[in-house]
Amino acid sequence: MIPGLLLVISGPSGVGKGTICARLKTMDPTIHLSISMTTRPPREGEEEGREYFFVSEARFQELLKQGELLEWARVYDFYYGTPKKPVMEMRAAGRDVILEIDVQGGLQVKANCPDSILVFVLPPSFDELASRLQSRGTEGAEAIATRLRWAREELRSFRRYDYAVVNDTLEEAVRKVNAIRVAEKCRPSFHGLAWLDSLEE
Amino acid sequence: MIPGLLLVISGPSGVGKGTICARLKTMDPTIHLSISMTTRPPREGEEEGREYFFVSEARFQELLKQGELLEWARVYDFYYGTPKKPVMEMRAAGRDVILEIDVQGGLQVKANCPDSILVFVLPPSFDELASRLQSRGTEGAEAIATRLRWAREELRSFRRYDYAVVNDTLEEAVRKVNAIRVAEKCRPSFHGLAWLDSLEE
Repeated sequence: MIPGLLLVISGPSGVGKGTICARLKTMDPTIHLSISMTTRPPREGEEEGREYFFVSEARFQELLKQGELLEWARVYDFYYGTPKKPVMEMRAAGRDVILEIDVQGGLQVKANCPDSILVFVLPPSFDELASRLQSRGTEGAEAIATRLRWAREELRSFRRYDYAVVNDTLEEAVRKVNAIRVAEKCRPSFHGLAWLDSLEE
Repeated sequence: MIPGLLLVISGPSGVGKGTICARLKTMDPTIHLSISMTTRPPREGEEEGREYFFVSEARFQELLKQGELLEWARVYDFYYGTPKKPVMEMRAAGRDVILEIDVQGGLQVKANCPDSILVFVLPPSFDELASRLQSRGTEGAEAIATRLRWAREELRSFRRYDYAVVNDTLEEAVRKVNAIRVAEKCRPSFHGLAWLDSLEE
C-alpha cells in the first residue's frame, strides 16, 4: 500500500483556503480533511467533529505529554492542536490528508513529519485580501484590522513553505494545489516497484 | 520576468520519452525542446537542428573547454552534449526548457544547475519495455538485447531523480509530467511579489 500524502494548507484569513480544500475533496473524495482539536467550548451552531473536536484541557494535556499532537498552540486561554493518530492511520490506508492550519502549526508539522508538504495560499495583493475580508460583512472594522495585522505577519513566512499558490481565480488555485499533490506522489519514494527490485539481483 | 524551468526527462530506450515531450510541447507551444550537439556525422534522413546540431570535434572541444556544455559524454568515437547558452537564453525569456537525455547527462545537469528538475520515465514493467522495443520492429534481436542491458543499468538510478512517472497510459504520464511542471512553478522562489516586499518595510 502506497501511503497517502500529508498536505498542509496555510495562508491569511480570507484568502480562500477553506474553499480550495473543499474543492479538492470534491475532486477526490478519498482525501481526508483533518479536524483540529480544541479546549475552547463550542460556539452556537458548531458541531463536534465538524468545526473542531471539543476536548477538556486535561485530555489535551495528556495527548500533548504523550507526543500525540502533530502541532499545537495556545491562543488566549484555550489550546488548539492536531491529533497525530487519525492522520497517520489515514495515510497508512493510502488516503491523502489535508491540514488547514496556520503557519506556526505548519512549520511544527514539517518538523515532526519531514515528508509533509507545505502549501501557502497567497492573495493576489494585500488590498485584494482586505477587500475580501470587508466584503464578507461578518466582522467590524476592528476585527478586520486585527486579521490584516496577522495576515501581514503570516505572509512574511511564505518562503519557508514548499510551495505558494496565488488564489487569483479559484479554478486556477485548485488546479495548482492539485498539481502539487499529483507531482509529490511521483517522488521516487512513492514507487514500490517489485519488478525493479528483482532486476537488482 | 519569471524564469522558465529546466526539466530533464530520462528513461530507458523505448519507454516513450519522446512522445511525452512532443505532447507537452503541443499542450504548451512556448516549451523549448532542447536539441543536443554531436560530432557524429548525420545519418541518412537526419537534419541539422532537428535530430542534432552536427559540429566538428574542434568546435565541440572548444565549447567543452569554455564550460559551455551543460552535460556531455563520449560514446565510442563521438561526442554528444547540450550547449548551455540557448538553454539559459530560453529560460531567461520565461520559457520552460526540456532536455531529453540519459541518466548520466541528467545527473551532470543537476550538478551544474541545481534548480533543474529531473524526471525519470519508468515502464510499467521490464517485460513491457522489452515487448515495446520488439514491437517497433526496427532492430534485430542483438540490438534489442543491448538496449535492454542499458535499460537495466539506467533503471537502477531512478531514485536519484527528483520524480519518477510510470508510462502506463500516455495520457496519464503526460498529465503527471505536466503536474510536475505546474507544481515546480509554484516554488516560493518563482513568486516575485512586489506588493509583498513593500509590506516588509
